[in-house]
Amino acid sequence: MTLILALDFGGTKLAAAVVNSGAREWLRYERRLSPADGNANTDLEIMRDLINSLLQGEKPDAIGVSFGGPVDAKTGTVRLSHHVAGWENIPLKDLLEDEFRVPVTVDNDANVAALGEYRFGAGEGNHSLFYITISTGVGGGWILNGQPWRGVGGMAGEIGHMVVDPAGPVCLCGKRGCVERLASGPYMARNVREFLENVPPSRQGRGGKILRGLVGDNLDLITGKVVSDAAAQGDELAQDVLLKGAWALGVGIGNVANLINPQLFILGGSVIKAGDNWWDVVRTVARETALPEVEFTIVPAALGDDAPLWGAVALAESGL
Amino acid sequence: MTLILALDFGGTKLAAAVVNSGAREWLRYERRLSPADGNANTDLEIMRDLINSLLQGEKPDAIGVSFGGPVDAKTGTVRLSHHVAGWENIPLKDLLEDEFRVPVTVDNDANVAALGEYRFGAGEGNHSLFYITISTGVGGGWILNGQPWRGVGGMAGEIGHMVVDPAGPVCLCGKRGCVERLASGPYMARNVREFLENVPPSRQGRGGKILRGLVGDNLDLITGKVVSDAAAQGDELAQDVLLKGAWALGVGIGNVANLINPQLFILGGSVIKAGDNWWDVVRTVARETALPEVEFTIVPAALGDDAPLWGAVALAESGL
Repeated sequence: MTLILALDFGGTKLAAAVVNSGAREWLRYERRLSPADGNANTDLEIMRDLINSLLQGEKPDAIGVSFGGPVDAKTGTVRLSHHVAGWENIPLKDLLEDEFRVPVTVDNDANVAALGEYRFGAGEGNHSLFYITISTGVGGGWILNGQPWRGVGGMAGEIGHMVVDPAGPVCLCGKRGCVERLASGPYMARNVREFLENVPPSRQGRGGKILRGLVGDNLDLITGKVVSDAAAQGDELAQDVLLKGAWALGVGIGNVANLINPQLFILGGSVIKAGDNWWDVVRTVARETALPEVEFTIVPAALGDDAPLWGAVALAESGL
Repeated sequence: MTLILALDFGGTKLAAAVVNSGAREWLRYERRLSPADGNANTDLEIMRDLINSLLQGEKPDAIGVSFGGPVDAKTGTVRLSHHVAGWENIPLKDLLEDEFRVPVTVDNDANVAALGEYRFGAGEGNHSLFYITISTGVGGGWILNGQPWRGVGGMAGEIGHMVVDPAGPVCLCGKRGCVERLASGPYMARNVREFLENVPPSRQGRGGKILRGLVGDNLDLITGKVVSDAAAQGDELAQDVLLKGAWALGVGIGNVANLINPQLFILGGSVIKAGDNWWDVVRTVARETALPEVEFTIVPAALGDDAPLWGAVALAESGL
């Protein structure tokens, strides 16, 4: 029996699990919030607690790690975290190998989630696929011919910063009309908020009423979830913003299909719960953007929040 | 000594060459125009003549074929040619294997040119690269980890139909603002022509004079080459159109860099002769479009019109 330890440093959450290689259910599983004022050391301390509690004195045969930020997968070194301080150039693989004396494999969460969905989720049997998470940000991970494709510098998969509307709003990255700028939850919330704050009420049309109702007129409370709830309840402004996001993602997917021709796109992240209209627009626009001869399917992720952990299992197995 | 026969069915040109495996110079080389009213059979007849003349009674050890149109590389079947009638579903690999009794490998010209540049040209030593031809159309071919990447359905590389300006002009493919619609030679010519035909002279500004001069006021004679010549001579309209094409290509390259993170982009095709301004805009826009952490270089192709033939040599060697 081969015991695998899977770790997920998620930015806001820390999770760990143990599983027997080949099994489809966790032996044991634990999850904690990463403290808001924490840093790399506190994250590592919490993770050590989780690990000790999970292992119960047993020794794993391999460890797989998903990290929520850029990672040099070759050396297993974390480059940085956009959420937690102190992760700059931390040799996470080396740290864990010194501590546990077993092979450790580390990669970023999008790549690992792609691997998880490929091996254990919506991608089973599809050897070339692109996993996209649409949540706080928009990112992606590749499986090509059954193997993760990370790019020469480990930066592949950044569909979030593909420009789809050069006349669109300015993104944090400095460009206009990136997929992430239009389709991520926080940016959709911001687009709605800015419209309500800046456009004179006389020109706001019928949209926005339901939205305002959902947040008791406190526009600061608008989130991506609120936008999609308001859209589901018929708010026209929320629908416009949500479907513009779906359009941007659809253009991005169609462009990717033309470029790489994978057989499957798997969509994960909180925004995929936005409802049938959102899915319809994503699928229709992707189909229209791709050339007619380019075939593909778009499906929801199957593993939800556990995709990075299951991917970490696959990663650990690949390192054995 | 291993003798390789390389064939290039180019749409308007047919070329063939023989080379000793490992050598960097052709033993013999022949090229003919494909007749304007020709079809698959006349192309094959001309190619047979070339081959017989080249082989001089020798037997090749392997044959590699570049075809200017969609090919199923697994079976070596041509799907169609956009330039020459009668190529629908022609089993080119089988035909040639029956005739010459040696292994034959067939792929489309963009993939083959990518392989040629990788093995013998501007891509030597760069194991992950994207070759883009900007000419009558805009197409691309991938080398990932030293191997051609064709996509699950053999359709990968279609950067020409990536949408970069959803408010742009309508492309033959039905979408607006594809890279090819803005950056290819014939479409640049058309953009200039339509401006001169449709915009009232009083609103045409200072541009167009040099252009008109180059074609003796016969706008039908405007080609991509004329646009780039006029731009080089200072025509402002020609410069606008040419650099809009360079911008579109730059956005496309930056998007591809974010998605796949290859180390090198190689640009080939007639439009790359458009001059330093064109190259500057392509490079600057690509750099601005890619995330700062995504590194890459953009270089001109080294093999020119011979890239498909040299790629066919590499293809034949891979089939041995």
